[in-house]
Amino acid sequence: MRAVRLESIGSLTMRSVEKPVAGPGELLVRVTVAGVCGSDRHMYKGEYPTAIPVTLGHEFCGIVEAIGDTVTRFTGGELVTVDPNIACGTCRACTQARPNLCESLTAIGVTRDGGFAEYVAVPQAQAFVLPADLDPVHGAFSEPLACCIHAIDKAKIRPGDSVAILGGGVIGLLMVQLARLAGAGEIILITRQQSRRQTALRLGATHAFDPAGSDTIASVREVTKGGAAVVIECAGVSDTLQNGLKMARRGGTFVLFGVTPAGVEVPVLPFDLLVNEVDIRPAYLNPFTHSRAAAMVASGVLELDALVTKTIGLEEVAEVVGNAPLPGEIKVIVRP
Amino acid sequence: MRAVRLESIGSLTMRSVEKPVAGPGELLVRVTVAGVCGSDRHMYKGEYPTAIPVTLGHEFCGIVEAIGDTVTRFTGGELVTVDPNIACGTCRACTQARPNLCESLTAIGVTRDGGFAEYVAVPQAQAFVLPADLDPVHGAFSEPLACCIHAIDKAKIRPGDSVAILGGGVIGLLMVQLARLAGAGEIILITRQQSRRQTALRLGATHAFDPAGSDTIASVREVTKGGAAVVIECAGVSDTLQNGLKMARRGGTFVLFGVTPAGVEVPVLPFDLLVNEVDIRPAYLNPFTHSRAAAMVASGVLELDALVTKTIGLEEVAEVVGNAPLPGEIKVIVRP
Amino acid sequence: MRAVRLESIGSLTMRSVEKPVAGPGELLVRVTVAGVCGSDRHMYKGEYPTAIPVTLGHEFCGIVEAIGDTVTRFTGGELVTVDPNIACGTCRACTQARPNLCESLTAIGVTRDGGFAEYVAVPQAQAFVLPADLDPVHGAFSEPLACCIHAIDKAKIRPGDSVAILGGGVIGLLMVQLARLAGAGEIILITRQQSRRQTALRLGATHAFDPAGSDTIASVREVTKGGAAVVIECAGVSDTLQNGLKMARRGGTFVLFGVTPAGVEVPVLPFDLLVNEVDIRPAYLNPFTHSRAAAMVASGVLELDALVTKTIGLEEVAEVVGNAPLPGEIKVIVRP
Amino acid sequence: MRAVRLESIGSLTMRSVEKPVAGPGELLVRVTVAGVCGSDRHMYKGEYPTAIPVTLGHEFCGIVEAIGDTVTRFTGGELVTVDPNIACGTCRACTQARPNLCESLTAIGVTRDGGFAEYVAVPQAQAFVLPADLDPVHGAFSEPLACCIHAIDKAKIRPGDSVAILGGGVIGLLMVQLARLAGAGEIILITRQQSRRQTALRLGATHAFDPAGSDTIASVREVTKGGAAVVIECAGVSDTLQNGLKMARRGGTFVLFGVTPAGVEVPVLPFDLLVNEVDIRPAYLNPFTHSRAAAMVASGVLELDALVTKTIGLEEVAEVVGNAPLPGEIKVIVRP
Ligand SMILES: NC(=O)c1ccc[n+]([C@@H]2O[C@H](COP(=O)([O-])OP(=O)(O)OC[C@H]3O[C@@H](n4cnc5c(N)ncnc54)[C@H](OP(=O)(O)O)[C@@H]3O)[C@@H](O)[C@H]2O)c1
Ligand SMILES: NC(=O)c1ccc[n+]([C@@H]2O[C@H](COP(=O)([O-])OP(=O)(O)OC[C@H]3O[C@@H](n4cnc5c(N)ncnc54)[C@H](OP(=O)(O)O)[C@@H]3O)[C@@H](O)[C@H]2O)c1
Ligand SMILES: NC(=O)c1ccc[n+]([C@@H]2O[C@H](COP(=O)([O-])OP(=O)(O)OC[C@H]3O[C@@H](n4cnc5c(N)ncnc54)[C@H](OP(=O)(O)O)[C@@H]3O)[C@@H](O)[C@H]2O)c1
Ligand SMILES: NC(=O)c1ccc[n+]([C@@H]2O[C@H](COP(=O)([O-])OP(=O)(O)OC[C@H]3O[C@@H](n4cnc5c(N)ncnc54)[C@H](OP(=O)(O)O)[C@@H]3O)[C@@H](O)[C@H]2O)c1
Ligand SMILES: [Zn+2]
Ligand SMILES: [Zn+2]
Ligand SMILES: [Zn+2]
Ligand SMILES: [Zn+2]
Repeated sequence: MRAVRLESIGSLTMRSVEKPVAGPGELLVRVTVAGVCGSDRHMYKGEYPTAIPVTLGHEFCGIVEAIGDTVTRFTGGELVTVDPNIACGTCRACTQARPNLCESLTAIGVTRDGGFAEYVAVPQAQAFVLPADLDPVHGAFSEPLACCIHAIDKAKIRPGDSVAILGGGVIGLLMVQLARLAGAGEIILITRQQSRRQTALRLGATHAFDPAGSDTIASVREVTKGGAAVVIECAGVSDTLQNGLKMARRGGTFVLFGVTPAGVEVPVLPFDLLVNEVDIRPAYLNPFTHSRAAAMVASGVLELDALVTKTIGLEEVAEVVGNAPLPGEIKVIVRP
Repeated sequence: MRAVRLESIGSLTMRSVEKPVAGPGELLVRVTVAGVCGSDRHMYKGEYPTAIPVTLGHEFCGIVEAIGDTVTRFTGGELVTVDPNIACGTCRACTQARPNLCESLTAIGVTRDGGFAEYVAVPQAQAFVLPADLDPVHGAFSEPLACCIHAIDKAKIRPGDSVAILGGGVIGLLMVQLARLAGAGEIILITRQQSRRQTALRLGATHAFDPAGSDTIASVREVTKGGAAVVIECAGVSDTLQNGLKMARRGGTFVLFGVTPAGVEVPVLPFDLLVNEVDIRPAYLNPFTHSRAAAMVASGVLELDALVTKTIGLEEVAEVVGNAPLPGEIKVIVRP
Repeated sequence: MRAVRLESIGSLTMRSVEKPVAGPGELLVRVTVAGVCGSDRHMYKGEYPTAIPVTLGHEFCGIVEAIGDTVTRFTGGELVTVDPNIACGTCRACTQARPNLCESLTAIGVTRDGGFAEYVAVPQAQAFVLPADLDPVHGAFSEPLACCIHAIDKAKIRPGDSVAILGGGVIGLLMVQLARLAGAGEIILITRQQSRRQTALRLGATHAFDPAGSDTIASVREVTKGGAAVVIECAGVSDTLQNGLKMARRGGTFVLFGVTPAGVEVPVLPFDLLVNEVDIRPAYLNPFTHSRAAAMVASGVLELDALVTKTIGLEEVAEVVGNAPLPGEIKVIVRP
Repeated sequence: MRAVRLESIGSLTMRSVEKPVAGPGELLVRVTVAGVCGSDRHMYKGEYPTAIPVTLGHEFCGIVEAIGDTVTRFTGGELVTVDPNIACGTCRACTQARPNLCESLTAIGVTRDGGFAEYVAVPQAQAFVLPADLDPVHGAFSEPLACCIHAIDKAKIRPGDSVAILGGGVIGLLMVQLARLAGAGEIILITRQQSRRQTALRLGATHAFDPAGSDTIASVREVTKGGAAVVIECAGVSDTLQNGLKMARRGGTFVLFGVTPAGVEVPVLPFDLLVNEVDIRPAYLNPFTHSRAAAMVASGVLELDALVTKTIGLEEVAEVVGNAPLPGEIKVIVRP
């Protein structure tokens, strides 16, 4: 079968490889749709550790084609979304309900072969059934959505709260929708590209600001009469971190979600954090949220098609992942 | 009567002034014991805003000597501790249960006359009855203790958790005791002065480290097998902030309590915060905790005498507040 | 001026009385709209204690007509909604952030003169400004809404959760909307009157069941695939309590909101509560939620006109309050 | 080897059986100490479902004697405590962090062979290492302690809070100690046997009342000045449930822990629950708490020897389990 293999840092190629086999407790999934994620680019460049050589692709859904020994929850034929993050279940973090902090975390599409392929073998515990008639493109959003739901859990938005979101990539545009679903009052997206600001307004944002052309801190503080109750950082750059902290109202919450490169230092003002009692709550990965994400995708409450800007085949993945995102690009979908 | 007046920045003097009168809804309190706080020194130097001229002293207890019109909860003769922070009750913060973030906060001993005096008039709602036979020195600890209890609420220590505390002033030494009361397993105090480390070990700390003489981050991570579940910063300096963040275990909580000067920037590592999911929770002042502090002081579970290093009269307050704390000094008690 | 006075149990009459005066710290409010509440009927019948003789009416809004001494937050002319529940601010409950459990709670329209009158005097801290152009009928919903928001806080609905609501009065129909705003997936209203079920479906309920005509426990368990994540009891009768508990899924939450008469015993099954870990969380009154309710009403996200079934003058209040609600009645609005 | 087998309801016998073998992913544990639990008596009488025939014993610790295929976390020789409750990891409850509500829960000593035997085979994920030099009797307390820690998590005791505990069996006496470790102020145990009340006072209770000889509701309300902040029901009988609810203060929490027989109805007063806002929070089994229990046992902060009233061999287990507990009995320890 065909698979897109990361063979060394900077070398990603479509290859013909052996079709995998479902081992004990595993499912063989025929991938129908996979999503390209910013992390794939980081892995390509060696900025994120992988188990080279490996097939990339950690956001995907597909049809159960075969089941391994001892598999009882599946019979074959189901449409499934797969949680790529495999926690060990026995380390200190896992036994204290923090699987996202697992000391031996492995991941499909990172440390074992993933979904940029015709088939992938996955442990059955990682798979979640979707309605058979669901558009599999929607199913492929379960993984990033599960991470966002974890962030929303930490944000503790109350009906009527103001929410500012920095960064209008696929994550920011999912957060806009989740903030709306959580009953937020003002929902403000800050991102540079105009097309994304327009999309955000269609998806439920009440305001969208351009950080290049205006003083977004002042604008947010004005719209929210003193600062946002919740700020969600989804860009992972020093500017949005520093500005985002200044957008929070007294007593507000700053959710740290964007991945700033390791080692980058960002200055904060402890006095301001203290006297304003602004909590900083990081949200990392998807602990206990993949099944909720799958259910939410299945329910149809999210507008996902608007986030898909391109659809490609396996043969184009290396090109897309090997280059910076094009202007306007939000989510690139792969159909093997 | 005599009162210690801040007359201009850098000018603190004991004066003879009119004895105050209990206005409507107020109590006239004869101060039996007041405590000197680091904030008094900041006010003296103009680093913290005050309503000059004003009598300082915001940690105190005393006897109700007279009651104003409409006072119903007191008859006179009660030993009371006074919460100095007066919230307006009507601003957005106050009406959402965040009185410590009140937009019009005033404070006894800061913006109106305080307890470094023979008498002080206070609104009845700020006063809390203590047992008549309680040592009033203990009563005077209610105010800093109330702030610490708020921090402990935010720390959410679970029985058995490891707790690292940075800064061994009166605050750090109260936190050590509160951590013990909350069932913490390892309780580690980091402070430079040896006498304080020894006091901490007597008060319940299981370990005490000198930041000057050792790699305290490594020591904390070793003692706690990977980092403290809870870190409480009680020094307010850049070093303890940066080091404290590195002492937290994955999934841990960093409570920001020390007051770093306004405008000071401290670099943090967002990547580390994110992948370790370390929450930063500031705790500011004493929202809804003064009555609990009074009850805890009254119950006798805290060792407070060990924190008193000197007792002075009103005539010595200017000298003490006008100079840096002496080595070994923890809490200076004033008996008017 | 005219006021509707409860003069003894069972005796409610419109009278000509002195126009009240704004005392120190008080506002004189010209009532533009007041709402009739089920509690008014309980007061009329003596089932709920009042300070007879008293003007009833605890849900109202109006225009500030005059201000008393020391009032600083109002100048006159503002449209305000009034929180009728006055907490003492100094009892154990109040000093621990539980004003709804205040040991000396008093209430406008219950223990002091209320809003079924042309004018009412209220402490300024109870008043919250609304936009000048808001329909005052909407403003009059702030009080019941504030109670519902407290219940929703306790319900901790997560996006996608299923919610079952028992009782389709004004409270149940507000809860339907709040559940929708909190991102609930399935929202099921159980009530007997068909017109209310239809209204609920228009307001955001996904299902509406008649407890008379069907096995609602089974229906809820089917729709929610095993039970609702959150059940909110808004009828206050034994049946809805017992059935509601059986509608909760394992790990779910049952919010107790309806007021069952004092002394009525309802049997529960502790074994079932335990092995299913169903939390029972009562929500009583409106602690720290009136300002949020005012903001939500002002934002226009709620459909409130659909809840108004009749508008009357002061002269009809006694008749309406003195009789059981008519079929179809939801909220009766009074325009003095 | 010898094992105590439940062969049919009411028939428990020590038998000579095959020594088990560690299957893939399993450990073979040589049982050094097991504890008899009240549930064992319920299983014997058929009041709790089991997979007859089966070896009972779900509280135990022992030495790893052999490891099965794919076991990596153990090498043999470790002292381990075993969490008997095996969650499936894939059902709705498990994937939402509620393994104690697992839809396919199985348990060692209940649905597969347990620890009343010389050897037992257990999945490695259920085993937690204890210090080699720990008294294994203490290790055998990990299981009931883990359940109690879950209850304490739900109780949310704050330093200084009053706690009332009903039922002075092994559970109640562990709760007394956990309440002390959580910084509770008054700790009141209510139980009938005098010897247990005395033990409780030695273990940290501040008061111990006899429900037979006094009005315990009045006593608790007096000691706590209005009701306990937290009430923990550990007897599982109608009386303690009804009385316990009346011991909670306004705004307090009632933790439901005792197992009342299935089908038993207990009347509650919804009006009182509502206007007092008393939360009812059931705590069932040990989700994510076994490792914390093991750490706590290892730390030595608990007094466990005082809870052991008898030590027997395997040959006496049937006799002990087949009969009601003797007066004074707290925990019977089995040494195979
Ligand atoms: N915590 C987790 O578990 C988790 C999971 C998944 C992803 N992430 C992280 O979440 C972040 C967002 O992911 P994504 O897939 O949406 O990536 P993305 O497309 O790279 O989105 C980030 C967007 O932020 C905007 N941005 C950049 N600089 C900005 C600035 N100075 N001010 C305002 N906006 C700025 C850019 O949009 P414009 O060009 O429009 O400005 C950019 O596209 C990434 O850092 C990703 O690594 C975290
Ligand atoms: N958040 C609030 O509501 C609140 C309320 C009250 C007080 N505070 C703040 O809490 C902090 C502590 O108050 P305090 O009264 O205890 O004051 P303090 O006596 O000034 O205590 C701070 C102590 O920290 C230690 N320290 C200084 N530099 C250190 C370093 N690099 N590493 C380790 N320890 C260091 C010093 O002790 P050694 O000489 O032994 O190192 C110093 O005495 C202050 O910043 C105060 O403003 C906050
Ligand atoms: N906790 C608080 O702070 C608070 C505040 C305000 C109000 N409340 C209470 O909340 C409850 C609702 O208030 P409301 O103003 O909406 O009163 P309401 O109009 O009396 O609403 C209750 C509705 O429940 C329905 N109901 C009665 N028996 C039922 C049954 N067996 N099954 C299903 N539905 C049944 C009735 O509607 P159908 O005729 O359609 O069945 C009834 O109209 C009342 O108990 C009120 O006292 C509590
Ligand atoms: N939720 C969970 O996950 C979980 C886990 C383990 C155990 N449990 C349950 O927790 C409860 C306690 O367990 P245990 O092992 O300690 O059992 P236990 O020895 O049966 O303890 C219960 C004790 O309650 C006391 N009691 C009985 N009636 C009483 C009354 N009317 N008033 C006051 N005290 C009364 C008895 O002591 P006196 O003779 O001294 O009165 C009795 O020994 C049991 O119901 C058990 O099933 C629950
Ligand atoms: Zn792990
Ligand atoms: Zn205020
Ligand atoms: Zn009160
Ligand atoms: Zn399960």
